[in-house]
Amino acid sequence: MREKITSIHNQRVKDWKKLQTKKGRKKSHTYLLDGWHLVLEASHSQQKLLTLIGVADELDRHADIVALFDQVFEVTPAIMKDIVDSETPQGIAAVVELPNDHELPADRLHGAWLFLDRIQDPGNVGTMVRTADAAGFRGVVASDQTADFFNPKVVRSMQGSQFHLDLVAGDLKKWIADFKAAGLPVYGSELNPQAKNFRDVTPGPDFALIMGNEGHGMDQSLLQETTDNLYIPMPGQAESLNVAVSAGILMFQLNQG
Amino acid sequence: MREKITSIHNQRVKDWKKLQTKKGRKKSHTYLLDGWHLVLEASHSQQKLLTLIGVADELDRHADIVALFDQVFEVTPAIMKDIVDSETPQGIAAVVELPNDHELPADRLHGAWLFLDRIQDPGNVGTMVRTADAAGFRGVVASDQTADFFNPKVVRSMQGSQFHLDLVAGDLKKWIADFKAAGLPVYGSELNPQAKNFRDVTPGPDFALIMGNEGHGMDQSLLQETTDNLYIPMPGQAESLNVAVSAGILMFQLNQG
Repeated sequence: MREKITSIHNQRVKDWKKLQTKKGRKKSHTYLLDGWHLVLEASHSQQKLLTLIGVADELDRHADIVALFDQVFEVTPAIMKDIVDSETPQGIAAVVELPNDHELPADRLHGAWLFLDRIQDPGNVGTMVRTADAAGFRGVVASDQTADFFNPKVVRSMQGSQFHLDLVAGDLKKWIADFKAAGLPVYGSELNPQAKNFRDVTPGPDFALIMGNEGHGMDQSLLQETTDNLYIPMPGQAESLNVAVSAGILMFQLNQG
Repeated sequence: MREKITSIHNQRVKDWKKLQTKKGRKKSHTYLLDGWHLVLEASHSQQKLLTLIGVADELDRHADIVALFDQVFEVTPAIMKDIVDSETPQGIAAVVELPNDHELPADRLHGAWLFLDRIQDPGNVGTMVRTADAAGFRGVVASDQTADFFNPKVVRSMQGSQFHLDLVAGDLKKWIADFKAAGLPVYGSELNPQAKNFRDVTPGPDFALIMGNEGHGMDQSLLQETTDNLYIPMPGQAESLNVAVSAGILMFQLNQG
């Protein structure tokens, strides 16, 4: 059943727009996927599919995917642009359920985890999740002031990796304490030659790596709790690396699969 | 001598705005630095300083840097916002000379070089230049359809690295041929397990690495000319890495300083 919406003032359109904010996502416990690539990834995963929204052309073109949804809405291109927070809307979007934070697996200390300490830029958060996925990490834990995983800009740069690993909002102090209590290493990262050269570290399969804020680096109180702090020796003149680039270099060193 | 400009219709304001486009930069052979950090970096380098533009407060606060410029203009915050292509203008900007493409050093085949094959996103280009700088690379060569090095968004993400290495717009086919004629390795990068594991490659100090377009990867005709093609084994489920993250992983492996 395909329902048609032509007015931008329709209540559903207003509700979908609210998914651009954290408050709106929390209240409805849903978020928005923009584009066929993500909708397809979702359909291949355990993700519960709720509502498909598309312009007529796109819905006509993919009857097989449309059939996976109980609720399908046809909207105008102008409404589509209004709903998704994108310069280049793809004409198709889906409302899906947020993962449930309270269902942390009991064996959560197994595998490699990335901890994000107040990472502000949504593009950086999304790129780090995507990289953690590629590097075979188990999950990513975001501290309080880290950009929300289901912010539309983060979702865009994750490119579907949210369907492959555990994304958790959590208290990093507690996570660090849990890892250390289990005898597992927690690595900090900082621009400090007194830290350990990242090339000299070869952990087992279970560990955590912390990346810190773009401008200020890691929280000092977390830094003190780590097993080791790693730095990337830089033979050149640049003062620092982009945090997502550093995270990539460190993750592919620590987890060689 | 500080001249005051209060009208957005002033001809100088119009000229500065033109520096947001490649055409405008080429015509005047200048580009714009946004913020004290970049202006300071420029003043410490060989960069020729032409014009300083600032709001009153910022100019008053840094008389020492203001003194380095022959031409200083005080503008309103509204004009400042109009000139620089930024959501968060810092209230200070400088017009500086573009580096001269025709002054390539004769020993240009020494050192590590990054070749960019049609990299479209300005943030990716800027981040790769910054990373190449940190990794001790000698320079970066951009192909025809790569985002311009002096595009305001690229300048923002380079964070001053343009003062540390050679940035050249060039024909990659010719550059590859020059390296190979000198017996130096040129590495391609592609998502192909038939390629060589990047961890198995340890070049000498002189080599080139090519990174390809975000969506389409490397140009096939360039790929055929390389010495070796490298891939990054990915133990996880993500299909690919962000190009700037891949470039960081490869550069820090190939050039360990």
